[in-house]
Amino acid sequence: MDILFEHAAILTRNDQGWQVLPDAWLGIRGDRIAYLDNLPPQDEYAVRKNLVGHAILPGLFNLHSHTPMALLRGLGSNLPLDRWLFEKIQPVEYKMTAADESVGARISMMEMIAGGVVSFSDMYMAPAHYAEEVVQSGMRANIATPTRAVVDGIRVSSVPDALAFFDRYHQAANGRICADFALHAEYTSTIPEVEQITEICLERGAILQLHLSETIKEHTACKQRHGKTPAKFFYDLGTFDNPTIAAHCVVVEPEDIEILFEKRVTAVHNPSSNMKLGSGFMPLAQLRQRGVNLALGTDGSASNNNQNFFEEMHLAALIHCGYRNDPLAVMAEEVLTMATLNGAIAQRRPDCGAIAVGNQADLAIIDLDKPHLMPNHDLISLLVYSAQASDVVMTIVAGELLYDHGEFLTIDRDRVQADLKKSLARLF
Amino acid sequence: MDILFEHAAILTRNDQGWQVLPDAWLGIRGDRIAYLDNLPPQDEYAVRKNLVGHAILPGLFNLHSHTPMALLRGLGSNLPLDRWLFEKIQPVEYKMTAADESVGARISMMEMIAGGVVSFSDMYMAPAHYAEEVVQSGMRANIATPTRAVVDGIRVSSVPDALAFFDRYHQAANGRICADFALHAEYTSTIPEVEQITEICLERGAILQLHLSETIKEHTACKQRHGKTPAKFFYDLGTFDNPTIAAHCVVVEPEDIEILFEKRVTAVHNPSSNMKLGSGFMPLAQLRQRGVNLALGTDGSASNNNQNFFEEMHLAALIHCGYRNDPLAVMAEEVLTMATLNGAIAQRRPDCGAIAVGNQADLAIIDLDKPHLMPNHDLISLLVYSAQASDVVMTIVAGELLYDHGEFLTIDRDRVQADLKKSLARLF
Repeated sequence: MDILFEHAAILTRNDQGWQVLPDAWLGIRGDRIAYLDNLPPQDEYAVRKNLVGHAILPGLFNLHSHTPMALLRGLGSNLPLDRWLFEKIQPVEYKMTAADESVGARISMMEMIAGGVVSFSDMYMAPAHYAEEVVQSGMRANIATPTRAVVDGIRVSSVPDALAFFDRYHQAANGRICADFALHAEYTSTIPEVEQITEICLERGAILQLHLSETIKEHTACKQRHGKTPAKFFYDLGTFDNPTIAAHCVVVEPEDIEILFEKRVTAVHNPSSNMKLGSGFMPLAQLRQRGVNLALGTDGSASNNNQNFFEEMHLAALIHCGYRNDPLAVMAEEVLTMATLNGAIAQRRPDCGAIAVGNQADLAIIDLDKPHLMPNHDLISLLVYSAQASDVVMTIVAGELLYDHGEFLTIDRDRVQADLKKSLARLF
Repeated sequence: MDILFEHAAILTRNDQGWQVLPDAWLGIRGDRIAYLDNLPPQDEYAVRKNLVGHAILPGLFNLHSHTPMALLRGLGSNLPLDRWLFEKIQPVEYKMTAADESVGARISMMEMIAGGVVSFSDMYMAPAHYAEEVVQSGMRANIATPTRAVVDGIRVSSVPDALAFFDRYHQAANGRICADFALHAEYTSTIPEVEQITEICLERGAILQLHLSETIKEHTACKQRHGKTPAKFFYDLGTFDNPTIAAHCVVVEPEDIEILFEKRVTAVHNPSSNMKLGSGFMPLAQLRQRGVNLALGTDGSASNNNQNFFEEMHLAALIHCGYRNDPLAVMAEEVLTMATLNGAIAQRRPDCGAIAVGNQADLAIIDLDKPHLMPNHDLISLLVYSAQASDVVMTIVAGELLYDHGEFLTIDRDRVQADLKKSLARLF
C-alpha cells in the first residue's frame, strides 16, 4: 500500500496511555506506518483517502481460538456440558477431514477480518490442513499443533506433525505466520508429554499455548492427581520457561498468579466462552494488580458462538463490574490495551499492536456515522461499550487491505459457501 | 403493506414453544399478518419478495429505556457511580430542552429500529417533548411521565403533565402509542405521591412503570426507611394493583418474588446496565421458577451504552450461566420469549409479540448470509448467541416498513444529525 488517510480520528498511545488524535493524517508505505500527525505530510502518496467521520484503531489481537470449530457453531446449546462435548461436539470432530477444518478456519477468519481482528492465536487438531488458507487470508496468526491428535477415533502423538509444521511455517509469509507449540491442558497431558514439548519448545525459542484452570473441576482434579494446581504443575516441569500463552485462567489461585507473573505468562481472558460453559469469571483485577500480561480471546465458535471480538471487548469491560459490584472494576482503556498491544506482546510481535511510525500497518477503520455511535463524547468509551463489529469498514494487515465495506479481498466467499455445503453434507 | 414474503425461515410459536418453519410464506395485508404456511397461498399479493437466506422473527420488545439519554452516551465512563451521576449526567439533564430530548429520543429510536426493535417502554422527564417524534417513527411505545420533573434545577410535581399526556396520547396512532404512568422509584417518591399515582393509574386502567430494587444500596435504604423492601412498600400501598412494569429487580428477596408473582408484575431484566453500573445480577432463575413474567430492556444509553437489543439478548443468555456456574441456567428459547411475547404481554398488546395469522405485522428480518451465522444448525441458538443487531435488514411495525437495508424510512437521518449538532453546541 501507498496510501494517505486524511482527517481520521486516530487512536494512539504515549507514556500516559491511550490518546485520541481527533483529526489526523496516517500514511502507509509498503507494510509499515510511514506517517502520523495532526498536520498533513509534505510528501506525496499514490492514493489519498478522506476519512472524515471515521476512526482508525490498531488492529485487534484475538489470542485464543480454535478456528475450525466454526463448523460446530450452535450444536447442542441446550445440553449440559459433558453431553454437549461427548454427544455433539466430539463425534463430529472425529469425523472432520482436512477439507472440513479448512472451511471452518476460513469462516472464522472471515468473521475476524470483518470485525477488525488482524492477528490470532490458534490451536486445533491438524493445522497443516488449513495453514495455507491462513497464509492466503493475509492475517497474522500464531498457529499451534497440540501434542495429540485423534485419528479414526484413536489418540496418537502428533509431535512429529508439530515439528514438521514448525519447520515449514515458522516465520512464514514475512513473519505473519508463527508456528507455536501446544499442550492442550494438564488434564489431557502426561508428564512425559509435558517434558517433551517443554524441551522441544525451549530448543526452538517457540511460544507455547495451553489451557489453564478453565474450570473448577479441572483445577481440583489436578490438585488431587498431582497435589498441586495446574499452574504449579507446569511451573515445576519448567514449561513456563517458554514464552507461554495460557487461555482462561478462571480459577487460578494467588500462588498461581505469582507464578504467571514471575514467568511472564500471558493470561488470555475469554469472557463469552467462560460464561457460556458455566466456568465463571477470571480474577482479572487480581491478575492485573500483580502485573500479569492480560490478553483477550474469543475461544472457538462451538462455545462462544462467534468470533466477534468487539463483543468480547464489551463483555470484558462489563462483566467484572457486575460480578464485583464495582463500576470501576475494569476500564475501557485497559480492555483496549488487552485487545491490541498486550496481544502483540504475547505473540512476540514487537512492531505490532499500536499505531506508531515504523510499526506494521495493522489497522481497523470504523465508520462513526451510526446512530449508536452518536454523540462522540469519548471515542474509547464508544469503541468498547457502544460499537459493534459491523462498524468496521476496512481491515488492513501489513499494509494490505483484507476487507473493504463488506467485501473480503483475500478469502473467496463463494468458495467458502460451496465448501461448507459439501462439509455439512458429509458430517451431518 | 400488501406483500408476500417467500422462502424465509420463520420463527413461530405453538403450545410446545418456539418452532422454526425453515422454508415458509408470510403474507401481510394492511397492518396484520394474513398468511403463514409452509406452502404458498392461493391468493395474490401486490408485492412478492423472495427471502431465501433470511429469517423472519417477531419484532423485539425493549421494555425499559430512557430514550433521550442517548445524548449522554459515554459521559464519565471512568468515574464512580455517584460522581458519574452528579457531576456528569445530572448537570446536563437539568439543561436539556425539548429539542434536546427530541434528538436524543430519535437517535435511540434509530438504534432500536435498525436492530429489529418494534416496541419500547420509555420513561423520561417530559415525554411531551418527543412524543410526536415517536408517533412519526412508526414504532410502538408505552411512554410514561414520571411524578416529578426538574425545572431550572428545582423539582416540581409533573402530575398535571402526566394527566395531560395521558389524555392526548393514550391509544394514539391506532393504539401504537400508550401513555403509561411512572413512579421513578421508592427512593425518589413520597408516600402521598405513590398513593396519588396509584389511584390515578387505577382509575384509568393504565400501566405503571417503576424502578425496583436496582441496587443493594437502594434496597437497604428502603428497609431502613420503611421497615420493608421496595416491593413490599409498593404492595402495601396498592401500587401493584395496577399492571406494573418493574425495571431491574436485581436485589429482590424471596418474599418480593412472591409479591411480583401474586400481582402479575413484569420484571424487566437490564443486563448491560446492571453490570455497567456495578449493580449485579438479577435472580432470573428464581423469578422464572416462581412464574413471574420476565421481559428484557436496554435501559438508557447513559448506562448501557447503546440500544442494541441483540446484545441484551446475548448477555441475558450468557451472564447467568457464568454467575451460577451452570451452562443451562438460561436457555436461548426463553431469552427469545422474554424479548418478544413477554414484552407484548407486559405492554398489554395481545395481538403482538408472536408471528401468527391475525396478529399485528411486527417483524424483524435477518440476513443469514453472514460468516458468523454459518452454518445454521439451530436458528434460535444462532439468533441469541451469534447474531448482531446489524444482521437486521428490515424492520416492520403494523405492516409499515420502518427500516430497509440501512435506510430509515420514517426518521430523517440528516435532520437528526443537524439537530444533534445544535444540541451538543448548547449543552457542552
